[in-house]
Amino acid sequence: MSKMRRSERIVRLTQILLEQPHRVLSLTEMADKLSSAKSSLSEDLAIIRDVMEAEGLGTLETQAGAAGGVRYVPGLRDDLAEQFLQDVVQVLSTGDRILPGGFLYMSDVLGRPDVLDTAGKMFASRYRDSGAEYVVTVETKGIPLAVATAKYLNVPMVVVRRDHKVTEGSAVSINYVSGSRRIQTMSLSRRSLPEKTKVLIIDDFMKAGGTAKALADLMREFQVDVVGVGVFMSTVDPEDKMIEQYVSLATLTEMNEATRQVTIQPGTYFA
Amino acid sequence: MSKMRRSERIVRLTQILLEQPHRVLSLTEMADKLSSAKSSLSEDLAIIRDVMEAEGLGTLETQAGAAGGVRYVPGLRDDLAEQFLQDVVQVLSTGDRILPGGFLYMSDVLGRPDVLDTAGKMFASRYRDSGAEYVVTVETKGIPLAVATAKYLNVPMVVVRRDHKVTEGSAVSINYVSGSRRIQTMSLSRRSLPEKTKVLIIDDFMKAGGTAKALADLMREFQVDVVGVGVFMSTVDPEDKMIEQYVSLATLTEMNEATRQVTIQPGTYFA
Repeated sequence: MSKMRRSERIVRLTQILLEQPHRVLSLTEMADKLSSAKSSLSEDLAIIRDVMEAEGLGTLETQAGAAGGVRYVPGLRDDLAEQFLQDVVQVLSTGDRILPGGFLYMSDVLGRPDVLDTAGKMFASRYRDSGAEYVVTVETKGIPLAVATAKYLNVPMVVVRRDHKVTEGSAVSINYVSGSRRIQTMSLSRRSLPEKTKVLIIDDFMKAGGTAKALADLMREFQVDVVGVGVFMSTVDPEDKMIEQYVSLATLTEMNEATRQVTIQPGTYFA
Repeated sequence: MSKMRRSERIVRLTQILLEQPHRVLSLTEMADKLSSAKSSLSEDLAIIRDVMEAEGLGTLETQAGAAGGVRYVPGLRDDLAEQFLQDVVQVLSTGDRILPGGFLYMSDVLGRPDVLDTAGKMFASRYRDSGAEYVVTVETKGIPLAVATAKYLNVPMVVVRRDHKVTEGSAVSINYVSGSRRIQTMSLSRRSLPEKTKVLIIDDFMKAGGTAKALADLMREFQVDVVGVGVFMSTVDPEDKMIEQYVSLATLTEMNEATRQVTIQPGTYFA
């Protein structure tokens, strides 16, 4: 490729960085690829970093030295995260979302690309320094959130199944008691996770935390370290969850089937 | 915000565009937001478009007139798509991926962020002019691909369930006969899709096409129009699928449990 002008280089660099969060990109390789001097590249990167930080959308981290490189670290400034959450809360806080049995219909919201993207950015931002090497979720409703989070952490995601499937090969299964006091099963392919890795658990909803705890138990079978648990929504009751450390984007504080009243507040993410 | 320099504006514009594929962004609003003249903005956008096209990563479409705007249309040049597919095929074509019963273990590959991102871009690129308003998949393994595709089409995604869940409200269910000749069920919340919309079906694997056909049948119950079917991998046998029009990224041409031989070729996407 012939020498690029600064403005062209900046387009290309911005695109390369945004597409590969958390990956250290070698300055030497990029200079080569863009036929530019490393000094010009460093100036470009400083501009990109300044704009990202001014807009509250993450930053660039530079590593000095011969193996010097640059890494895009996604983020979302608190005021932008709060604005997003308020918008989502408003959509979710309507009586006609209350389903028989006291469930809240959220599937449409958890299928919106903007919601997934922002929620993924928030989890990735919160757990940016956790060292998570995989994002783990259990089917079904948490999968899109896990995909979005894994994208911004740039790590693979792993789906724990509700039963042992022929397409997964040999698996480790555990039984656990769910919030509804039924015995349930979880199963994970033995090939899906190497031992001694670090995982971040992501799910859509947490009440007592039985599912998250079962996931953590399953991870122990794989000798895997759980570095965090992130859920889209948790309930205010019960106050004592079966998992101690978790981050929720929203908290469901009230849902009354008779009065059709739903009250949702910012979650522990904002605490 | 104070007036930005061109290089800063270009970072910001590139980021805004990449984050909102297929959305028409008003030039007037952007000029306002970036405190720039529309004429400067048009020059910036021309630079961004030229770089995107030169790199084979999509384009910008400009709409003239008073309501003028610009839209980022994701794409992936054929040679880049082919390179990606060759890499994936190499990873998948190993004998130890053959599972009892003649299944191919793909879950790890379908959890990789780079694979999801590129596959999503390919489907979104192929169906860019389809008018798809939703991406629909059936749980479980197709969900990550559907999320990635929906992101690049910037439309919501909808997950059809294998049975009727309390968290989905009233639902429409159908029975169908799967490739393994068992009666199976699919269920979709009535609230999930408005009538008269257009949907793109995405799934991970297609053999005879029974699942895709059942999804299309279910869509008919919602008076929804299926504009396309995209699968990550299809099998060469049976040649006659139950779905006529589909796009597969890869074709499984041979899998021999005795010799541990797996052969995968480029799919109909490249035909």
